[in-house]
Amino acid sequence: MSAKKQLNGSADEVEAAFYAAISRGDLDALMALWAEDEEIVCVHPNSPRLIGHAEIRASWEAIFDNGSVHIHVQQVHAIHNLASAIHSVIEEFHQKDAIAQDVHIIATNIYVKTPRGWRIAMHHASVATGQAPRDLFKNNVLH
Amino acid sequence: MSAKKQLNGSADEVEAAFYAAISRGDLDALMALWAEDEEIVCVHPNSPRLIGHAEIRASWEAIFDNGSVHIHVQQVHAIHNLASAIHSVIEEFHQKDAIAQDVHIIATNIYVKTPRGWRIAMHHASVATGQAPRDLFKNNVLH
Repeated sequence: MSAKKQLNGSADEVEAAFYAAISRGDLDALMALWAEDEEIVCVHPNSPRLIGHAEIRASWEAIFDNGSVHIHVQQVHAIHNLASAIHSVIEEFHQKDAIAQDVHIIATNIYVKTPRGWRIAMHHASVATGQAPRDLFKNNVLH
Repeated sequence: MSAKKQLNGSADEVEAAFYAAISRGDLDALMALWAEDEEIVCVHPNSPRLIGHAEIRASWEAIFDNGSVHIHVQQVHAIHNLASAIHSVIEEFHQKDAIAQDVHIIATNIYVKTPRGWRIAMHHASVATGQAPRDLFKNNVLH
């Protein structure tokens, strides 16, 4: 089972792999990045909360049935410690018609360090009214 | 400055104090629960991301200007480690007219252990379509 693979990347690399898998529509690669724990949580914009591998996998499968999604992550604000990494990001969609022009997507991505490496524990994405704020400040990353 | 007080409660107690302060409309008590870090993040439903004490305080002040908000938290799914606690919750509003009947609010609340005790690092609340799911399972809390 691919989810049992050892991953050696940092939380940042897992985040990059997460959005890369989404852009390829690669369901197995995407799901292998999540913690094996059945308490993992995924919230898609405007959608109910999903808990556990089966629900989360089915949701991404349905998304990929409509084609892959190209997301560029920007304005990362992060809090890292030895066991967890918490990222607040703005998700920028490359297909400009993928979402309405007068909204943007905010995501909270949470990574935990497991015996098999850094994995995704929660992904919470939601819609905010208005265009994405311009990045007035340089990216601030706390360690 | 009240934010510098030592807090001795657990992350669960900080969460209870957070919603209690909201229900009282107590801005100072609410803000004292946040980490002193300027990287703290707050996302209100449908709203842009707020970063830092000044923006977050102003947003709650505007909310409280319209009266306090009584929220009951249910269906907590949590991942705890020594330095952070991550809670996914459904926010149930006591005033039934506070939100539309065909939506519900999902929140991700993140607490970090600081030298002054457990504090809120991020609060991300968002709207989900449909009524809140019924709690089919007992609360699952991972430690």
